[in-house]
Amino acid sequence: MAGSRSWAEGVLQLLGRMNSFHTLQGSSKPVCKQFCVGGQAVGVVQPRMLPLLRGYPEVFQITNGHVELRDHLRTFQQRSTALEQVLRDWRERGLFNCLSKWRNEEYPVMSRFCDPPLMNIERAAVGLFGVRSYGVHLNGFVRHDDGRMSMWIGRRTIQKETYPGRLDNLVAGGIPASLGVMETLLKECQEEACIPDSIARNARPAGTISYTYEDDAGIFPECQFVYDLEVPVDFRPEVGDGEVLEFYLWSLEQVIELLPGSEFKPNCAMVVLDFAIRHGLLHADNERHYQQLVEGLHREL
Amino acid sequence: MAGSRSWAEGVLQLLGRMNSFHTLQGSSKPVCKQFCVGGQAVGVVQPRMLPLLRGYPEVFQITNGHVELRDHLRTFQQRSTALEQVLRDWRERGLFNCLSKWRNEEYPVMSRFCDPPLMNIERAAVGLFGVRSYGVHLNGFVRHDDGRMSMWIGRRTIQKETYPGRLDNLVAGGIPASLGVMETLLKECQEEACIPDSIARNARPAGTISYTYEDDAGIFPECQFVYDLEVPVDFRPEVGDGEVLEFYLWSLEQVIELLPGSEFKPNCAMVVLDFAIRHGLLHADNERHYQQLVEGLHREL
Repeated sequence: MAGSRSWAEGVLQLLGRMNSFHTLQGSSKPVCKQFCVGGQAVGVVQPRMLPLLRGYPEVFQITNGHVELRDHLRTFQQRSTALEQVLRDWRERGLFNCLSKWRNEEYPVMSRFCDPPLMNIERAAVGLFGVRSYGVHLNGFVRHDDGRMSMWIGRRTIQKETYPGRLDNLVAGGIPASLGVMETLLKECQEEACIPDSIARNARPAGTISYTYEDDAGIFPECQFVYDLEVPVDFRPEVGDGEVLEFYLWSLEQVIELLPGSEFKPNCAMVVLDFAIRHGLLHADNERHYQQLVEGLHREL
Repeated sequence: MAGSRSWAEGVLQLLGRMNSFHTLQGSSKPVCKQFCVGGQAVGVVQPRMLPLLRGYPEVFQITNGHVELRDHLRTFQQRSTALEQVLRDWRERGLFNCLSKWRNEEYPVMSRFCDPPLMNIERAAVGLFGVRSYGVHLNGFVRHDDGRMSMWIGRRTIQKETYPGRLDNLVAGGIPASLGVMETLLKECQEEACIPDSIARNARPAGTISYTYEDDAGIFPECQFVYDLEVPVDFRPEVGDGEVLEFYLWSLEQVIELLPGSEFKPNCAMVVLDFAIRHGLLHADNERHYQQLVEGLHREL
């Protein structure tokens, strides 16, 4: 039950895993090198990558503290092309499982979200260079007359490459190189849940969650822009592009119960936790780990 | 104007100052020692403190990485008394300006907010040992028929020891050793703004802000529990215990304009910024530094 010891421990474990790059004993954080492009730090590289990178001296310069894209790669296009060639080479050589899931989606590479992108990188490869990726997640909720809330939750199809069959927010998606945040949200609302712009435009920005996890596939600093959309009681999302198996409308208490454990895709559980905190369902007097829960949602790289 | 370059730069500067222990060149962070009580890290101690602490070998044990309260100080009371004696000694010797502002308010000392306190410390001295302090801040706001919001803002009296004459949230206060978070809020609502429990109880918990600044007086890790209270249009707070000079009801846009600069007590500006983010007045598409603004509100020690 929310507020119980085991609920809190389960959620803190989830936050720990999602921040494993910072918190886990044995994280490669202390031994990583910064990945720099055009003099700006845009990612982190694990030591296991260095022997491989040394095979491309025309692309990478490795110094004591840094891995840098060579200075002669000056333009956005030159950098993107050079890195893509390296990645395709690795893929052909059968290196890195993640590259077998090449998505043909370009993610922009920059030091901060507000900076002009320095280059693009194939989405499947961001973890190899610890490049931060950005997404948008939507809490779709219903407010009942008695003040209680229900939340729309999606279940991912079994065919999804990542987290098949897990629970998800009403709508979520990565922000590609070409789109703004609200643009991405409107597009995903349409594609994933058949929510027309007329409704989706009522989504209200409500902050971000930030975290960095490390696993066998690499280092993943991520920032998700969070939106809330209050929908009428009679609203029904519909399965769109086949990323979602079905949608459920559950009481918020019921959803919160499911946050620990493995029902949810982990970052979607974080988005619901953030919603529960912002809307006052958890607070310092009923959840003793409240402060850690809030802080676990907002860790800088 | 909010969203303009100069507004964002001003607010980022404020966040930088409030996180100076982490971000400022020349911060003592890399050379500080952890302050431990009963084997738990509860604070940080600057190198300048070490020669002084060595004068009390029966109270402090100084090792390579740590300053520890001696093991023979086993109980809550023994520890609190031993530290208080040291502090009173320093005060009599005229050391540390902060001690001349002795407040006779006990703050609890623990590793995390949820842990049982290991000892108490006089509020005026928390910065000397980098002990985290906790407070509660209330955003009092009015929602108009057209969806726009106004916010109640207090101005601190000229007599306040800290930040005299600056703007403040409707209600705010430190959480003393003896009270819960909501209890503190209800008490401060009554004392500072004559808000009866019947109204104050509608305050909704909405998260926390966390930051650590360092200045001449020491190191200040702080966590503020944030509440929102929607009040009727005809509600009027009244000056209570004389900590507030007067209250203003300003449009939220007007309040946001004032966040950079020195009108606001800095942590109160952060609480308003958090409100503006949670309620969607700022978002990733109208404020390019959005991600940094959110992250600057939530930094762990």
